[in-house]
Amino acid sequence: MSMKRRVWDIVEVAKPGDVASRTFDIAILALIFLNVIAVIIGSIHEVEQRLGGFLSVFETVSVFVFTLEYLARMWACTMDDKYSNPFSGRLRLALSPMAIVDLLAILPFYLPFIGVDLRSLRVLRLLRIVRVAKVGRYYSSLTLIRKVFRARKEELILTSAMMGLLLVVSSSLLYYCENGAQPDTFSSIPATMWWAVATLTTVGYGDIYPVTLLGKLCASVIAILGIGMFALPTGIIGAGFVEAVQKTKSEPARCPHCGKLIE
Amino acid sequence: MSMKRRVWDIVEVAKPGDVASRTFDIAILALIFLNVIAVIIGSIHEVEQRLGGFLSVFETVSVFVFTLEYLARMWACTMDDKYSNPFSGRLRLALSPMAIVDLLAILPFYLPFIGVDLRSLRVLRLLRIVRVAKVGRYYSSLTLIRKVFRARKEELILTSAMMGLLLVVSSSLLYYCENGAQPDTFSSIPATMWWAVATLTTVGYGDIYPVTLLGKLCASVIAILGIGMFALPTGIIGAGFVEAVQKTKSEPARCPHCGKLIE
Amino acid sequence: MSMKRRVWDIVEVAKPGDVASRTFDIAILALIFLNVIAVIIGSIHEVEQRLGGFLSVFETVSVFVFTLEYLARMWACTMDDKYSNPFSGRLRLALSPMAIVDLLAILPFYLPFIGVDLRSLRVLRLLRIVRVAKVGRYYSSLTLIRKVFRARKEELILTSAMMGLLLVVSSSLLYYCENGAQPDTFSSIPATMWWAVATLTTVGYGDIYPVTLLGKLCASVIAILGIGMFALPTGIIGAGFVEAVQKTKSEPARCPHCGKLIE
Amino acid sequence: MSMKRRVWDIVEVAKPGDVASRTFDIAILALIFLNVIAVIIGSIHEVEQRLGGFLSVFETVSVFVFTLEYLARMWACTMDDKYSNPFSGRLRLALSPMAIVDLLAILPFYLPFIGVDLRSLRVLRLLRIVRVAKVGRYYSSLTLIRKVFRARKEELILTSAMMGLLLVVSSSLLYYCENGAQPDTFSSIPATMWWAVATLTTVGYGDIYPVTLLGKLCASVIAILGIGMFALPTGIIGAGFVEAVQKTKSEPARCPHCGKLIE
Repeated sequence: MSMKRRVWDIVEVAKPGDVASRTFDIAILALIFLNVIAVIIGSIHEVEQRLGGFLSVFETVSVFVFTLEYLARMWACTMDDKYSNPFSGRLRLALSPMAIVDLLAILPFYLPFIGVDLRSLRVLRLLRIVRVAKVGRYYSSLTLIRKVFRARKEELILTSAMMGLLLVVSSSLLYYCENGAQPDTFSSIPATMWWAVATLTTVGYGDIYPVTLLGKLCASVIAILGIGMFALPTGIIGAGFVEAVQKTKSEPARCPHCGKLIE
Repeated sequence: MSMKRRVWDIVEVAKPGDVASRTFDIAILALIFLNVIAVIIGSIHEVEQRLGGFLSVFETVSVFVFTLEYLARMWACTMDDKYSNPFSGRLRLALSPMAIVDLLAILPFYLPFIGVDLRSLRVLRLLRIVRVAKVGRYYSSLTLIRKVFRARKEELILTSAMMGLLLVVSSSLLYYCENGAQPDTFSSIPATMWWAVATLTTVGYGDIYPVTLLGKLCASVIAILGIGMFALPTGIIGAGFVEAVQKTKSEPARCPHCGKLIE
Repeated sequence: MSMKRRVWDIVEVAKPGDVASRTFDIAILALIFLNVIAVIIGSIHEVEQRLGGFLSVFETVSVFVFTLEYLARMWACTMDDKYSNPFSGRLRLALSPMAIVDLLAILPFYLPFIGVDLRSLRVLRLLRIVRVAKVGRYYSSLTLIRKVFRARKEELILTSAMMGLLLVVSSSLLYYCENGAQPDTFSSIPATMWWAVATLTTVGYGDIYPVTLLGKLCASVIAILGIGMFALPTGIIGAGFVEAVQKTKSEPARCPHCGKLIE
Repeated sequence: MSMKRRVWDIVEVAKPGDVASRTFDIAILALIFLNVIAVIIGSIHEVEQRLGGFLSVFETVSVFVFTLEYLARMWACTMDDKYSNPFSGRLRLALSPMAIVDLLAILPFYLPFIGVDLRSLRVLRLLRIVRVAKVGRYYSSLTLIRKVFRARKEELILTSAMMGLLLVVSSSLLYYCENGAQPDTFSSIPATMWWAVATLTTVGYGDIYPVTLLGKLCASVIAILGIGMFALPTGIIGAGFVEAVQKTKSEPARCPHCGKLIE
């Protein structure tokens, strides 16, 4: 077995019995989790002051490892039938969602070296959290949930569209009701959308709410309609799960007379 | 094919393969979306000041197009068997929900010309957002959701009635509990209904809440009962979806012996 | 047909075709709704000042009608096989939930005459709202919902018990976490229960919330567990509806061979 | 029957017909409930001042009874086949969850005697509330709920993981959006997690919310995604219940001809 094939086996999700590949998988997963924790605790001022140096070194090492993994994957991918062509195959891999996540996770580290000033682009550091999404590759049990979403895709899209419509209509309605009484809070329809989201999702922070009689009346109707925003997707997804679970179970029955499969 | 029939084919939802009609549909849809966006961003003071003139022209053009579409539909509808009578057929079309929406969407523009002062009726401008509802005509996949609601209609109405009852009873209860301690906030039962809606939908803005021991006790029980306001419609709709999905699947099976349909 | 039997037929829910009884039912229902509206708008100070006299007369008339109906039902009930015994039958009717509601709805009006001062017992006026519950007698379609609740009764009770346990445990936990930092707000475990209800039902008014790190940590876990407070009853009720709907459908199948019913 | 066996029968959940054991079970349950009530009302300052002495005596007596029960169980457990070995059997019982709960419930009372100062460890008094969990032993109907959770375990864990991921990502996102505008409230990613929990569970106290345009935009998307946090577990659990209910029903049918089981 060539070294290229061995590298490809290792960077891919381990096959049963491949101890080296499995160890590599677990190590990468652990490094991802440690990176997420580093980003989270690094945002605390006191931790940054105390452990700032250590976290910086840890980040450098992590990015180095992630870069190596990315390059190894890019180099060895031609061993796979899907990416066998040296050029177009590698491009297809580079444009796959997971490879883009991998690139985005290491890119912010290199940008300053090519002249992009990260201090003014601090938000790019956020991309490092994207590394968590790499975990998805190692998790194969998303299948049932993904199947349910795919089967009920059309209804879920339609529900989302109805939510969007409800959002737009209720924002417009409340804007015309409340703009006169609270010109600063309900200053425009987009500003009122913040109220509509808080109400329809039933979060209700309380930073913005109607005070006029008409506004409260409309808001009441909208809040009650908002219950449908929970009931519809929940009902759709629930039915999807019932269906998916029953499908996996129903093995074809045999006719007790002729022994042939029924249905 | 007469011109009248061609016009009718075009203003109606396109049949497969009718490119001109399909282009027309997409153009109208795009215009509706642009109008909604114009209403939304037009409510922002800065945008109104900068783009006010442009938005005004865009509105005039849009209303012109929508008026043409409305008149064309009214003129050509006699080609359809449903509206074949020149007078009663056109009246029936004019009174259909979608035609009323179409009329409401263009009416606010013409009202000032016939003497109605729109400045004192600013809220009528809201009607323009109704144009979004025209999208529904082009979307045929509402069927499953509509079927579920129709099948479970009686239970959903009953649940709504129970919600209404719970709303009235809890408002009355809290009014008697809290009116003494907070005469300004819980000033009457209708005023307390605003609290009841915020609580039963679990929005909870925090602008109005009980402070007395008895009020908090009643409010706790009401809030917990309010969970049923989610659970009941969600369960009903969920069961409706399960049923609808299973119905579409279960094609009648044939008995393997006599070849007749079973069940 | 004796007059007693006719009276009983009229006060009971109308049989199909009995016009007089049906008219009576509708009149009583209308009177109940008008009474609820009178209680609601009577609580508004301005309405009370303007229409106080009229509402008072309306209440007297209503109570007179409801009293007549109550007495007629009590007198005529012996015509029904269930309540045929003049004494024990009438007692059984008087102790049925609906008759108690009827009595509670008229009692507050008579109490002042027997010396009970209603001014100090203003809350008793609330009982008049109970008249709404009389509507339930005329509504026979509660059956499916009631069947679902009865079938899943045990699981719903268990879920309620788990909610109660979660309520007690989270209140205790937060009390010990927050009492030091906010001795006035989190003053005792019962006081903290108000917080627990607002959090577990996700109402979250914002009048009481943890501020310490430990308190926020515990509250986060509790709030996430609280999602189960929605998911469990919703799932149970949903499954109950699926089951109930399937049961009403599945008519017994016939064996294609011997023609006898299967299952 | 030896005394040891009789003691074991009594401390265990009663077998049908064993009156003494059943009386003991009910007495212990009542004592647990009274203890919970004592902890709850004992936290009210006025009650503590008035009934402090009585509650203290009641606690001493309760702990005495619970200690006796714990020791009796430990002594007699060798009568059970599962714990027959005098040493390893007793150790296995002592390490079972319920026995640990029993120990934790009485431990705080004894700690001061062995030198641990409870005044500085006031939070340990909380452990007394754990006594409630002992009720679980007497309740055998948890089975269906437990079965559903076990059957859908994998999906629920995955959903929890997705919630955790959503929590981390949204906290990071909002931290970078809002830290500039509100450095005190959104001071770090862990501090922002408090916001994320309040939003994703739709509690929304209103003590912390975004004020910048970008922050509100991100928060809106996150709040809407948070609906899935209800829909997914609810759908999964609902499907689990449907499946569990159908399984208990579908007893194997017998073929009417050959008498063999079908399906």
